[in-house]
Amino acid sequence: MVYTLYYWPGIQGRGEFVRLALEEGAAAYVDTALQPAGEGGGAAALEAILDDTELLRPPFAPPFLKAGRLLLSQTANILMFLGPRLGLAPRDAAGRLWTHQLQLTIADFLVEIHDTHHPIASGLYYEEQQAEAKRRSAEFLGTRLPKFFGYFDRVIERNRARGGWMVGNGLTYVDLSMAQVMAGLKFAFPHAVERTLDSYPRLHALHDKVFARPRIRSYAKSGRRLAFNNRGIFRSYPELDR
Amino acid sequence: MVYTLYYWPGIQGRGEFVRLALEEGAAAYVDTALQPAGEGGGAAALEAILDDTELLRPPFAPPFLKAGRLLLSQTANILMFLGPRLGLAPRDAAGRLWTHQLQLTIADFLVEIHDTHHPIASGLYYEEQQAEAKRRSAEFLGTRLPKFFGYFDRVIERNRARGGWMVGNGLTYVDLSMAQVMAGLKFAFPHAVERTLDSYPRLHALHDKVFARPRIRSYAKSGRRLAFNNRGIFRSYPELDR
Repeated sequence: MVYTLYYWPGIQGRGEFVRLALEEGAAAYVDTALQPAGEGGGAAALEAILDDTELLRPPFAPPFLKAGRLLLSQTANILMFLGPRLGLAPRDAAGRLWTHQLQLTIADFLVEIHDTHHPIASGLYYEEQQAEAKRRSAEFLGTRLPKFFGYFDRVIERNRARGGWMVGNGLTYVDLSMAQVMAGLKFAFPHAVERTLDSYPRLHALHDKVFARPRIRSYAKSGRRLAFNNRGIFRSYPELDR
Repeated sequence: MVYTLYYWPGIQGRGEFVRLALEEGAAAYVDTALQPAGEGGGAAALEAILDDTELLRPPFAPPFLKAGRLLLSQTANILMFLGPRLGLAPRDAAGRLWTHQLQLTIADFLVEIHDTHHPIASGLYYEEQQAEAKRRSAEFLGTRLPKFFGYFDRVIERNRARGGWMVGNGLTYVDLSMAQVMAGLKFAFPHAVERTLDSYPRLHALHDKVFARPRIRSYAKSGRRLAFNNRGIFRSYPELDR
């Protein structure tokens, strides 16, 4: 099976959570964001899907994953589908529900992270909501970040397998996503995150473990993994980082 | 199987999406929010789970569903689990992924609805973020509401079964959730939603179809379904409703 991933070119965004799973799972896939528009890639590839009036099951927003005749959307849904196929999910049904539940909690966290710089509307520029962004970021860093970090660190601590992973005794797709969130937060809020090193040691260790995996390292070195920038979910505005 | 639902007493909130599925599916369940604290119910029931330091798979936030030894969280995850068990999901794997994908898009919509009155922080009072709420609500009603309504109306239109449901030729749990969102929006933004009647006829018809179902009607009449109020996701602040 060769998968096709559709996402906006030029940013990591939600597409990156899918890419990390495809890379760690050594999947064969086409990333349309990296293909030239002349070869059917670029933004036009996903816009053709968004504009397709014949699609019986239209997606709302990218990322999209094509797997044979299936066209899937919603990051957590895509990862739930890919997990067992790429050896990145537990074998038992209860373990799979638990992994998905954690992924959905990461999705909630991600919305709050995005809204630190866009608290009023995605359709407005940051500069048009900067005052609100400062207020929301202060609340986020003071209350929500510690709540989510505390929770996810506890999940690793409570995992009976004691291997430093979130679920069971090996890496699953939710570890990849969690490490990506940590990487993004280090970019967006370096000072605030630096101060959490001692309080959430398992979470920080998870980040390092994931980005030390041979396939993830070679993906990062390949040039295919874009750098974080101020057009994605995680943005670096020093005025928002206490 | 007798299910147990844990949610905050006094509000519909996210718990209501699970209740509607349990009711339409004629499931046997205990709703701890409706049980007296002296009988193990009330807020204490769910706080005991949140505070349980022995739980190997701790949930982040309610609703929680106990099903035998399983303790599930995240509304969309709970509904994905219940759907097939209650006859509220398609039989095929592709149809189940599609239903879940729609539920996750409803979850995204719900966060945006909540944030119209709490754009800065859930932990602050509405009155402390009213100016920002007015700005966010105007953007929401002008841009996001039509985008989501247009999408979901199109989903019903594109469904080849042509029965007015979102997936296949019968009601699924996502129809129940969609109708609940419509009901909540009618409470929160009566004027803005009234003006959408002609533009999204399938979505409005879906709301009416769901709340005319015998089991949903008898649930609504039972007194167990709480009224909307200004402590939940959907809140009525006339100054936010253009």
